[in-house]
Amino acid sequence: MADLLVVGSVALDSVETPFGKVKEVLGGAATYFSYSASFFAPVRLIGTVGDDFPAEHVQLLRDRGVDVGGLKTSHGRTFRWTGEYGYDLNEAKTLDTQLNVFAEFRPSLDERLRRTPFLFLANIDPELQLDVLHQMAERPRLVALDTMNFWIQGKRDALLKVLAEVDVVTINDAEARQLAGEPNLVKAARVIAGMGPKTIVIKRGEYGAMLVANGAFFVVPAYPLESVYDPTGAGDTFAGGFMGYVASQEQVTASTLRRAMVYGSVMASFTVEDFSLNRLKRLEPAEIEERYRAFHDLVRLEA
Amino acid sequence: MADLLVVGSVALDSVETPFGKVKEVLGGAATYFSYSASFFAPVRLIGTVGDDFPAEHVQLLRDRGVDVGGLKTSHGRTFRWTGEYGYDLNEAKTLDTQLNVFAEFRPSLDERLRRTPFLFLANIDPELQLDVLHQMAERPRLVALDTMNFWIQGKRDALLKVLAEVDVVTINDAEARQLAGEPNLVKAARVIAGMGPKTIVIKRGEYGAMLVANGAFFVVPAYPLESVYDPTGAGDTFAGGFMGYVASQEQVTASTLRRAMVYGSVMASFTVEDFSLNRLKRLEPAEIEERYRAFHDLVRLEA
Repeated sequence: MADLLVVGSVALDSVETPFGKVKEVLGGAATYFSYSASFFAPVRLIGTVGDDFPAEHVQLLRDRGVDVGGLKTSHGRTFRWTGEYGYDLNEAKTLDTQLNVFAEFRPSLDERLRRTPFLFLANIDPELQLDVLHQMAERPRLVALDTMNFWIQGKRDALLKVLAEVDVVTINDAEARQLAGEPNLVKAARVIAGMGPKTIVIKRGEYGAMLVANGAFFVVPAYPLESVYDPTGAGDTFAGGFMGYVASQEQVTASTLRRAMVYGSVMASFTVEDFSLNRLKRLEPAEIEERYRAFHDLVRLEA
Repeated sequence: MADLLVVGSVALDSVETPFGKVKEVLGGAATYFSYSASFFAPVRLIGTVGDDFPAEHVQLLRDRGVDVGGLKTSHGRTFRWTGEYGYDLNEAKTLDTQLNVFAEFRPSLDERLRRTPFLFLANIDPELQLDVLHQMAERPRLVALDTMNFWIQGKRDALLKVLAEVDVVTINDAEARQLAGEPNLVKAARVIAGMGPKTIVIKRGEYGAMLVANGAFFVVPAYPLESVYDPTGAGDTFAGGFMGYVASQEQVTASTLRRAMVYGSVMASFTVEDFSLNRLKRLEPAEIEERYRAFHDLVRLEA
């Protein structure tokens, strides 16, 4: 089991879905990622919050064993995101984004963090992603990166630079098509692999996720849930389960990546069952294994 | 191996996709269904065409062993459908529908057809579906029905009547939600099961298909294809592979249905690779088995 470093946002989210509404609850990509990954491997978090950030949220991460030494408290307000979802829950409509202290976020890694063997660059400015990667004292065993349409469109050159240096990219299907400039997903994956990352994880929301690694495809459906309350954080929770599982294994083989896809899906399936990290907060490790088996049953040919 | 009866449309389709354009080619739900099913079991087709219908199309079905004794040629023009697809290929935009002789379609089954053990009611007026079902001399071993938003909205009462008497319904996910009046698909499936069909096949286009049978879920992804030219007929081809495989088996167990889902997906994955039935026309049985294994590899945990 090896350590896993994540750099990304820690936020206060206000979210409305057809099933309810929450105000200024714990959110942020690095938060969901590290909480999820903590069930599999030791996690170190790099991020920034304002001095209005509730201490209980930091304590929550500490209680899961997350190393929050790299979470800097700056003078000012924490990053805030406000969004809503319609009945299909597939796409968030962003109502308001206040970067606040996150606008000045310049991650600086100490000697210890620079030697973490697994690295996840959550969805932030690709220039920062590259900067963090270059701060590493030695090339991590595995580097994964998440990105989105905003950077694909607005900072394409910087994104291509960092993509050339990572092993894994997580991206949704529309963004994969946009990044590759190719409507066919199979061809798009090949174009993206040519940009650098040999492993591509395509996130498909309520339809699950697809892994493309060295030309081979692996598909995990989403778990059919009766109560999906809030998809916020599902992608980052997925990435946390994926990277956490990978970091927990001796070797990163093709089979490791496939099982990691399922663990990522398992974790995401819990996150969407409640707002914020509420479902993860009451999650027992035995439930993870139980749902892992349930995922297996979903695709098993023998009933 | 038992016989399989299908009632539905035989048509001339004009289709435009970003990858090409065809005019008045062979189409129709019963056509795709029976051609696909013919790889698994003996098929009997009930439908109607006009006297302008090219004899070569009928011969094509005959060459596959399809019993076309129930395909009536009426005086007039064959049913014509014109549609187009955008880059995502997910939803057809209907540009023109000319029912022609299909408007007067009143299927009448002879004594032999009335004793077919497997029945597929393709997407037609639910009143006709019920009429055909009631013409059967004895209750078939398995009855499946396909429907669409047009009937869910316009002929709900008739649809509910026939649904109460069938074993399997095939429907896309938006239509499942519409039929059940319930946005959550798990709950929607339960509502639909309460209407009659204990087995629900939810078609999800480029995301594959989901089986809900007695509360258990089974998911088949779509096959990742490099060249998707035309999704027309994919759903009916799926249904043909599904029902054909079921009819080919001694018993209809939960495992039979799961394997049938994969065979349905296999057949649909071929249909979309070319316009009309062009890909199916050059399909070899060995290719079906090869792609069946490829589907298995898509979800296999060990790479």
